[in-house]
Amino acid sequence: MSLLSIDLGGTKLAVGIFDKNGTLLSSKEYPLAGRQGKQVGEFIIEHILSIFRSSYAPVDAIGVSVPGISNSKNGTVWAPNIPGWDNYPLLAEIRSVAGDIPVSVESDRSCYILGEMWQGNARGTDNAIAVAVGTGIGAGIVVDGHVLHGAGDIVGAIGWMALHQPYKEEYVQCGCFEHNASGNGLAKVAKQYIGENTSYAGVLTRKDREDITSHDVFAAYDEQDPIAVRVIDNAIKFWGMAIANLISIFNPEKILLGGGVFGPAVKFIPAINIEAMKWAQPISAKQVSIEPSLLGPAAGLYGAGYLALQLIQRNN
Amino acid sequence: MSLLSIDLGGTKLAVGIFDKNGTLLSSKEYPLAGRQGKQVGEFIIEHILSIFRSSYAPVDAIGVSVPGISNSKNGTVWAPNIPGWDNYPLLAEIRSVAGDIPVSVESDRSCYILGEMWQGNARGTDNAIAVAVGTGIGAGIVVDGHVLHGAGDIVGAIGWMALHQPYKEEYVQCGCFEHNASGNGLAKVAKQYIGENTSYAGVLTRKDREDITSHDVFAAYDEQDPIAVRVIDNAIKFWGMAIANLISIFNPEKILLGGGVFGPAVKFIPAINIEAMKWAQPISAKQVSIEPSLLGPAAGLYGAGYLALQLIQRNN
Repeated sequence: MSLLSIDLGGTKLAVGIFDKNGTLLSSKEYPLAGRQGKQVGEFIIEHILSIFRSSYAPVDAIGVSVPGISNSKNGTVWAPNIPGWDNYPLLAEIRSVAGDIPVSVESDRSCYILGEMWQGNARGTDNAIAVAVGTGIGAGIVVDGHVLHGAGDIVGAIGWMALHQPYKEEYVQCGCFEHNASGNGLAKVAKQYIGENTSYAGVLTRKDREDITSHDVFAAYDEQDPIAVRVIDNAIKFWGMAIANLISIFNPEKILLGGGVFGPAVKFIPAINIEAMKWAQPISAKQVSIEPSLLGPAAGLYGAGYLALQLIQRNN
Repeated sequence: MSLLSIDLGGTKLAVGIFDKNGTLLSSKEYPLAGRQGKQVGEFIIEHILSIFRSSYAPVDAIGVSVPGISNSKNGTVWAPNIPGWDNYPLLAEIRSVAGDIPVSVESDRSCYILGEMWQGNARGTDNAIAVAVGTGIGAGIVVDGHVLHGAGDIVGAIGWMALHQPYKEEYVQCGCFEHNASGNGLAKVAKQYIGENTSYAGVLTRKDREDITSHDVFAAYDEQDPIAVRVIDNAIKFWGMAIANLISIFNPEKILLGGGVFGPAVKFIPAINIEAMKWAQPISAKQVSIEPSLLGPAAGLYGAGYLALQLIQRNN
């Protein structure tokens, strides 16, 4: 049995073949190289047809992870980083070449948690959440064995979580949690603290202020830079509160932290856990484990593979 | 077709008969009159058997709403206000008299939203949340047509939502949101504000401070008492943030506010809506409507009736 897994990112396409036990038999990455709109769809189709002609044929099912929203009602995709993909008919295009082979398309964040449930740190659970902290913050959520979609397929926009009063204008673009604790957010908060602290002459002044990134903040933290320590301490409070809210609201068995920031922030998980346990519903708090992602950047590819497997299991 | 609906509360038992169109053909309430533990189970069985002998027989399915947690794995019930119901085998007891008639038991908060989806303000939706604000705060949540349960069946403990730093010792018993915005919370915050304001001589001093309830706060608000206005303004901020978080996390079509506090707080829904829209994910914010419960105290009875109907639909 061959499960074809397609993981589309903003700048590259990953194509994997899994067997039904979750073993990755083959995987390759291809840069999108500036392709836009329909060219990206054609690029995906080209790689699917190439697998159909390969030694991995026949393919039993196709799962696709997309960097945005997959509309579960009509199969179109909205992907903010792919120009022209506002309402892109990806499912219909793939079906036009897939014939009888079943196809499923899901958002990357849903695929992250599906991948972790299949072959990662959420194996054996029916209730798990993957929190992806990168440029922004989003979550893939599985409850009672079902991936959540919601009315408009935008469940899990947890970067918008309101966690501290008062409301600030900075939240208009990205939400309160994301402003304080995403990769972009860490850099923004660092710049703000530096601006407020005219006597500061620490590590973060080595660079133009506007060029500071979250990586600079983590590096400065390792040198115990006082601004970086304040930025991280602030983020730990927000990460802890947000995770506490996911615990109280969803009663999950696992919350997995991934994305580019976890990564370097993995070492703060014990501190985040202490913060979360303070706020969360106490019975649910005892039933959950907060862990790093196991699959890291491969979670989307594994998740798309699991989507494909579920299509077959559903049909049998 | 007769659907038997049982709505157990902390002090009374309601028994209803619905037809499959959701028309309530009969409903009666019986005080628990101090019954505890197994006596409450026997009381329920007695009323079921009485319906079996009535003109409403034959009964096609039985739905039960319980004031606590229904363990979906083993059918036991934890109900904090019924002494001896820590792990009560309610489903097994009812099945022992129900024979082939299917039975389902759910938490009251799940029944609230099911009732509203069947015959209330969430008709026609697959994604809706009932927020019950009474002594405490909890939510019944339906996503993609499924009632959420979670790992330990305690999904929706939204009273524990962390919404403002720093953490306070007052949150240990009930959580941050509940402390600021439940019925009990409104009274507690009023007492705290009065304690901090030694020159206050307003409406709320007519009563012993320890006896102040949320009803006193609402009445004092209507007289524009400054402490009551502060308590309500604070609660509106918390209600708004919590609802914003439900919008961003779940992308629902409806959020319904009910329980004893909504009730008198229904007139604040426009102000709560403004607050929620500020914080919430903007696309999801446009897809949701925030409304009062239509069914009020009858939502649990309707929800248990709908549970019964779903059992039959599932079997056909």
